Amino acid sequence: MSIVVYTYDWLPEFPRGFVRDLRVRWVLEELGRPYEVATVPLSPKSDAHRVMQPFGQVPVIRDGELTLFETGAILLHLAEDTLLLPSNRRAEVTQWLIAALNSVEMVSGAWMSMMLAARISEAFGPPSTPEAVEFARRNMHARLGALERRMRDRDWIAGAFSVADIMMVDVLRIPRAEAQLNDHPALADYVARATARPAFCKAMADHMAHWQAADATREAASA
Amino acid sequence: MSIVVYTYDWLPEFPRGFVRDLRVRWVLEELGRPYEVATVPLSPKSDAHRVMQPFGQVPVIRDGELTLFETGAILLHLAEDTLLLPSNRRAEVTQWLIAALNSVEMVSGAWMSMMLAARISEAFGPPSTPEAVEFARRNMHARLGALERRMRDRDWIAGAFSVADIMMVDVLRIPRAEAQLNDHPALADYVARATARPAFCKAMADHMAHWQAADATREAASA
Repeated sequence: MSIVVYTYDWLPEFPRGFVRDLRVRWVLEELGRPYEVATVPLSPKSDAHRVMQPFGQVPVIRDGELTLFETGAILLHLAEDTLLLPSNRRAEVTQWLIAALNSVEMVSGAWMSMMLAARISEAFGPPSTPEAVEFARRNMHARLGALERRMRDRDWIAGAFSVADIMMVDVLRIPRAEAQLNDHPALADYVARATARPAFCKAMADHMAHWQAADATREAASA
Repeated sequence: MSIVVYTYDWLPEFPRGFVRDLRVRWVLEELGRPYEVATVPLSPKSDAHRVMQPFGQVPVIRDGELTLFETGAILLHLAEDTLLLPSNRRAEVTQWLIAALNSVEMVSGAWMSMMLAARISEAFGPPSTPEAVEFARRNMHARLGALERRMRDRDWIAGAFSVADIMMVDVLRIPRAEAQLNDHPALADYVARATARPAFCKAMADHMAHWQAADATREAASA
């Protein structure tokens, strides 16, 4: 049975390319598994959405009887017993996948929220003091520096390419887009190497095409 | 072979009771598995520590040939194929364990850092504006409210008691200690129910005894 990936029905330009359904599309492309896309309203959120995802976020997947959210859990589920999560490296791959979420994104996300509040919109919060932003940036770079040292002598974070790389690279794409990997060349190379994979390119193309189609639907409706 | 849990050799009073080795002690007590405790220096961090844990944090475990960090990965590894992570509920339990780390702790940790910076020490960062702290607090309560609704009609977050409860409750213990669960009675009950378990009580007692022994060693050395 085909997998269904839920994402938003539409989004403004700004977060396109960084919505987390991309992580799920990427792993499905790596595995060569077909999937369908379904949508939930961005605003207002629907009750049906909150039944699937109590925090009102995307993505959510349906895989047969199973409904699942949290990209970490989705990636581990879809990759189970494949080359992206081999059973003899399960603990190590899981370690790095969770490190991406709880050690790297925990600090890069904190910094990014402050940046967005200052630059894009107060919807992301009131502006922080420059000292607080700089402290958050240094916190992020302490973690990125540790990761840079690890990636200097390897291509992938836990042996062969795995779901840990999909997660870590997707987390690193935001600091990279903000020019924060300039002093971490091994990490910049790592992101470039991973995002050159055909599966990433296909996933990103489909992700962006989804928003373009959503724009067209919206324009037709308002015409 | 016995499992080795690495934690710090000493810590000041303030974070005791909240260091993440507690999560690992708790799951090992639930499983009835014996373990040894080993230490790494709090300051300065050692090279041997960074080889095991590139970000210089604790806990780390050794389980035979395997060295593992990230409490999420450690809990999933230790509980694999036990009643705390049954194979027929693996995806759902993993989902909620990761939700604790990436959906709840992501926002509660951000708020807590700001609180600590304001109250304890500038080692946690420069003070944030009151508006930024309040924004972070509301972000946290939006997530806690969603979780409160889920926990109103159940005892445990994913069917029977599982590693997801160990993780979620340990994450919720910090907001609770800061009186942030007062308006979330189902969450307050959930934390009380989980922390009344004999395994939690034993883990906490051993965790605190470790710091008391560390104080005694330190006093003897300086005498």
